[in-house]
Amino acid sequence: MTTDAQELPTMAIARSPDLHATTEPWFDYPITVYPHHTDYAGIVWHGTYINWMEEARVACLNSIGIDFADLVKLGCDLPVVELATRYHKPLRMGMQAIAKVRMEEMQGVRMEWECRIESRDGTELYMTGRVVLVSVDREKGKIMRQLPPAVAAAFKKIRGI
Amino acid sequence: MTTDAQELPTMAIARSPDLHATTEPWFDYPITVYPHHTDYAGIVWHGTYINWMEEARVACLNSIGIDFADLVKLGCDLPVVELATRYHKPLRMGMQAIAKVRMEEMQGVRMEWECRIESRDGTELYMTGRVVLVSVDREKGKIMRQLPPAVAAAFKKIRGI
Amino acid sequence: MTTDAQELPTMAIARSPDLHATTEPWFDYPITVYPHHTDYAGIVWHGTYINWMEEARVACLNSIGIDFADLVKLGCDLPVVELATRYHKPLRMGMQAIAKVRMEEMQGVRMEWECRIESRDGTELYMTGRVVLVSVDREKGKIMRQLPPAVAAAFKKIRGI
Amino acid sequence: MTTDAQELPTMAIARSPDLHATTEPWFDYPITVYPHHTDYAGIVWHGTYINWMEEARVACLNSIGIDFADLVKLGCDLPVVELATRYHKPLRMGMQAIAKVRMEEMQGVRMEWECRIESRDGTELYMTGRVVLVSVDREKGKIMRQLPPAVAAAFKKIRGI
Repeated sequence: MTTDAQELPTMAIARSPDLHATTEPWFDYPITVYPHHTDYAGIVWHGTYINWMEEARVACLNSIGIDFADLVKLGCDLPVVELATRYHKPLRMGMQAIAKVRMEEMQGVRMEWECRIESRDGTELYMTGRVVLVSVDREKGKIMRQLPPAVAAAFKKIRGI
Repeated sequence: MTTDAQELPTMAIARSPDLHATTEPWFDYPITVYPHHTDYAGIVWHGTYINWMEEARVACLNSIGIDFADLVKLGCDLPVVELATRYHKPLRMGMQAIAKVRMEEMQGVRMEWECRIESRDGTELYMTGRVVLVSVDREKGKIMRQLPPAVAAAFKKIRGI
Repeated sequence: MTTDAQELPTMAIARSPDLHATTEPWFDYPITVYPHHTDYAGIVWHGTYINWMEEARVACLNSIGIDFADLVKLGCDLPVVELATRYHKPLRMGMQAIAKVRMEEMQGVRMEWECRIESRDGTELYMTGRVVLVSVDREKGKIMRQLPPAVAAAFKKIRGI
Repeated sequence: MTTDAQELPTMAIARSPDLHATTEPWFDYPITVYPHHTDYAGIVWHGTYINWMEEARVACLNSIGIDFADLVKLGCDLPVVELATRYHKPLRMGMQAIAKVRMEEMQGVRMEWECRIESRDGTELYMTGRVVLVSVDREKGKIMRQLPPAVAAAFKKIRGI
C-alpha cells in the first residue's frame, strides 16, 4: 500500500467545519480498565487508548450491519492513515468509562472518525481523538477509487444521510 | 493529574516554525518487526508504532544521561498529553527500520518530540509522528511549574542549546 | 518481590486431583476478537489470550465483591507466578467467544485459576489455561503469610466453600 | 487449523529427560524494559514476557539463516500450541536483561523451545518458560506431516546435530 499522506509537519487533519454533520449520534462502547491496560504510573498507558478506539469503531460498524471481518474477506481493508489523540485526564485501574465514536466525514474512500472517552455519567472527559481511514483493495495493495456500493450505502446510513 | 489540554477540535499541535531548531541531530533507534507487531493484514498494526516511539524517546534520554526510571523514582513523570501519527507506507514482518526521534521544542514543562520511522538506507518513510509530554509531580499529581534543574540542563543539552 | 518458584524443568503445576473441587461454577466473560488481537496469520496472536484470562479473572473477583483496584490500594497485590496455556483451535477476527474462569485451589496465599475459552454454544474449545497467583504485601515486596481476612472470606465464597 | 492438543488437565509438556541435549548453546537476545512493558505495580506485566520469548525465538532462527517472514511466505507457519512460564523475580522499568532461548526437542513437526530471562551477569533469574510450536501448512490450515527439507536441515543445525 502506498498512501498519499504528506509528512506530518502539515499535520493538522484536514477538516472543513461546514462539512461537519453535528447531528449524527454517537455510538457508545463501554470499557473497563484491567491491569494490562496500566503502566508503572498506575494509570492507563497512552497507547492503550488506540485499542479502545479501534474496538469502538469496529463495534459501531457492526451495529449498522457491517461486519469488519467480512469486509476484509471481500478484499476491502480500512487501514488507519492518520491518528491524533489528546489526553485530558487519566483513567485508572478498575475504572469504567464510555468510548464514544462517530464517523465525521467521508470524502471518497477517506473516512474520518471522532472519538471521546468519557465517564459513564458524562461529567468527566478522559481522551479525545481522531482517526482517518482509507479503503484499500487488499489484492492490489492500493487505495480504492471508490467504496464497494454496499459499504458506501452502509456508511451513509451510519451518518444518517 | 489534570491537564490543561483543550478538546481535540482545536487539535493542531501548536508549533511556531521559527522556534524550530532544525540543526539538532536525530537519535536513531533500530527496530525489527516481530510477529506480535503485526495484524491480520500482515502489516504492523497502527498502534504498535506508539510503542516504538516511546522506546526511541526513552533510549534517546538515556543516551544523554537521563535514566527515565530514575526520573520517575525522583517523583517526576512525563506523561503524553498529545499524540499524532501519520502512516505513509506499511512495515511488514521481518523488516528492519530506524525510529528517529528528536526533541523539537521545550516550553516550560511542555516538551514536543518528533519521530520519523524510515528504512535503514533512508529511502523509505513509513511513519511520521509527534508527541507532547508534560512533566508532572507524581506526589501532587499536578503539572510542575518548572522542570527539576538537573533535568532542564540535560534537556538543553539534548537540544544542543 | 522474591518468589519461591523453582525453575521450570519441574514445571508441571502441582495439582493433586483429589483436591479439585469440580462443583464450583464457571464465571463467564464474553470476548470479541478485534483487529489488534490478531497477527499476520489472521488469527488471534497467542499472547492476546493472556489479556483475556486476566480480564476474566478480575471480572470474576468483581462479581463476588472484590474490587481488584481496591485490593491493590489496600497494599495487597496478586502477581502471576506461573502460567500455562494450550491452544486448541484458533480464534479469528470478528469471532465472539466466552472466557470461562474459576478458582481451582487455594493453599495459603497461593491461588490456582483455570480458564477455558469456548464458543458461545459450548461446542468449540479454543484455549485452556492455568494461572497461579500469590498474594504479596506491596509495601514489603514479600509474599504474605496469610490473606487479609476479608479477602480470604471472599475467596472462600467464590469457591462455594 | 486444528491441533491435536489435549485439554490442559494433562498439561505437563511432554518431555523425556534423556532426549534432552544439554550441550546445545543458548542464543542471547538482549532486552530493555520500557514504560509500555510495565503495569500499575511498577514491574513488567506478566504477558509482556511472551513478546520477548517470541522475539528471541525469531532472532535465534534468523541467526541460523531462517527468515521467519520468508518461511511464512513459503506457506509454512509455526503457531504456538503450548506455553508455560514461571516468574521468579520481577523486572522493573529501565532494567536490562538477556532472554536466552534454545530449541530443546524436535519430534517430527513439533518443536519445543526453552527460554530463561536472566540478568546480564547471569546472577539473577527473572523468568523461565517453554513453548511448543508445530509447523502448519498455511494453505490447508493443517499440521504438516514433515518439515520442508530446507527447514529441517536448518533446525538440525540449530541443535548442533
